Amino acid sequence: MTGEHSSKQYDMDLETIRSKVLLMGGLVESHFHDAMSCFRTGNEQQAEAVIQSDLEVNRLEVSLDDMCSHLIVKRQPAANDLRTVMATGKVITDLERIGDESTKIARIAKDAAINRRSLPMFSGYETVRVLAANVADMLHNSLDAFARLDDAKAVQLIAQDAIIDHDFRSIMRNLITFMMEDPSTISSSLNALWVAKAIERIGDHAKNIAEHTIYIVEGKDIRHSDYVATKQEQKS
Amino acid sequence: MTGEHSSKQYDMDLETIRSKVLLMGGLVESHFHDAMSCFRTGNEQQAEAVIQSDLEVNRLEVSLDDMCSHLIVKRQPAANDLRTVMATGKVITDLERIGDESTKIARIAKDAAINRRSLPMFSGYETVRVLAANVADMLHNSLDAFARLDDAKAVQLIAQDAIIDHDFRSIMRNLITFMMEDPSTISSSLNALWVAKAIERIGDHAKNIAEHTIYIVEGKDIRHSDYVATKQEQKS
Repeated sequence: MTGEHSSKQYDMDLETIRSKVLLMGGLVESHFHDAMSCFRTGNEQQAEAVIQSDLEVNRLEVSLDDMCSHLIVKRQPAANDLRTVMATGKVITDLERIGDESTKIARIAKDAAINRRSLPMFSGYETVRVLAANVADMLHNSLDAFARLDDAKAVQLIAQDAIIDHDFRSIMRNLITFMMEDPSTISSSLNALWVAKAIERIGDHAKNIAEHTIYIVEGKDIRHSDYVATKQEQKS
Repeated sequence: MTGEHSSKQYDMDLETIRSKVLLMGGLVESHFHDAMSCFRTGNEQQAEAVIQSDLEVNRLEVSLDDMCSHLIVKRQPAANDLRTVMATGKVITDLERIGDESTKIARIAKDAAINRRSLPMFSGYETVRVLAANVADMLHNSLDAFARLDDAKAVQLIAQDAIIDHDFRSIMRNLITFMMEDPSTISSSLNALWVAKAIERIGDHAKNIAEHTIYIVEGKDIRHSDYVATKQEQKS
């Protein structure tokens, strides 16, 4: 009886943590969206608001980490359950890092707003627009896969990250050509390049969230492995 | 008696993990050193060796993460001890990320080697040499602080990261000026810029290791707090 009771308590505590993690995920998604919108419009006040709102994300990270530790100490979960808690902790870290990258984009947006006054023709935004939209999708889907413990969806997402990396490199090559053709665009091109880099990193973190989800569902640590390639071969 | 026995076992298991983490730390330090040396010499074979050796770091991460989970399930540590295991797990993640950054430097070194043939006068290496030396010091000291559980040293390191960030921004400004003055250096300057960025990130991870060390020693989660500023005010 005690065992069952304790296990139910564990399930309830874990569910509380998971719903707070998803809340944090929603917050982080909207910050990314807002940061990109600042980069498009050059609205410095909105950029400052995004930078400030990262403090809330940081607070959530510390408090959720703490909840995970308490859960382990109080409920002393068995290996299987512990795996879930540990992987959830890693999702929290990735979400905090995504918050950091959005903050970077917002800071660059502030700089870009200043540059744009002297160079109104070049909007770095157009260069990274599609990449940002694809990564926003990927992030949303990774949170969805984590929420539903959908490992099939998670596998798809991991494969998608390779496309993001490919698109990032292509943006980089274009910007280099652009700078060489017109050196007066170097500053704004570099801003676009840093934004592209931040977006690409958000894609990496979304991929990590997908990997943690697979670990929770299947109990396989697929980091640094050929797991996804194998899964896709099996399908074809 | 059982309690004492189990606690001794816990101590021994933890000591095994800690010494393996320090071994991983030494490996990661030497990869960073080798990657920078490739960027200096343009030795493509050595760069390839650094890229390959990251696989060993990745394997260590997965196996050490596993050892931490086993320790928690087997020894069911109390809150204090669990804190140490969790923070050690975070150190492992930071070390793996440092390995990733060194791999990036090695990849750029390969590109730079190709560029250098057409532009032998510009060595991006000189631009980032001092930053790399300072970050290598910082990494070494952060591992030392973790090994000795020296929280005073860890506090110093966190303050040092602000200097690294300042130096990085100054390198960035110099490289932009350089590119504007001579657009033919854009490609090589960007290589130097990405290397500088990777070095700066290694500094961030060294700072994280210092923060985890303080958490282990003092039980304070100082991420995102004014802890270091307060500590330094107290001293002055």
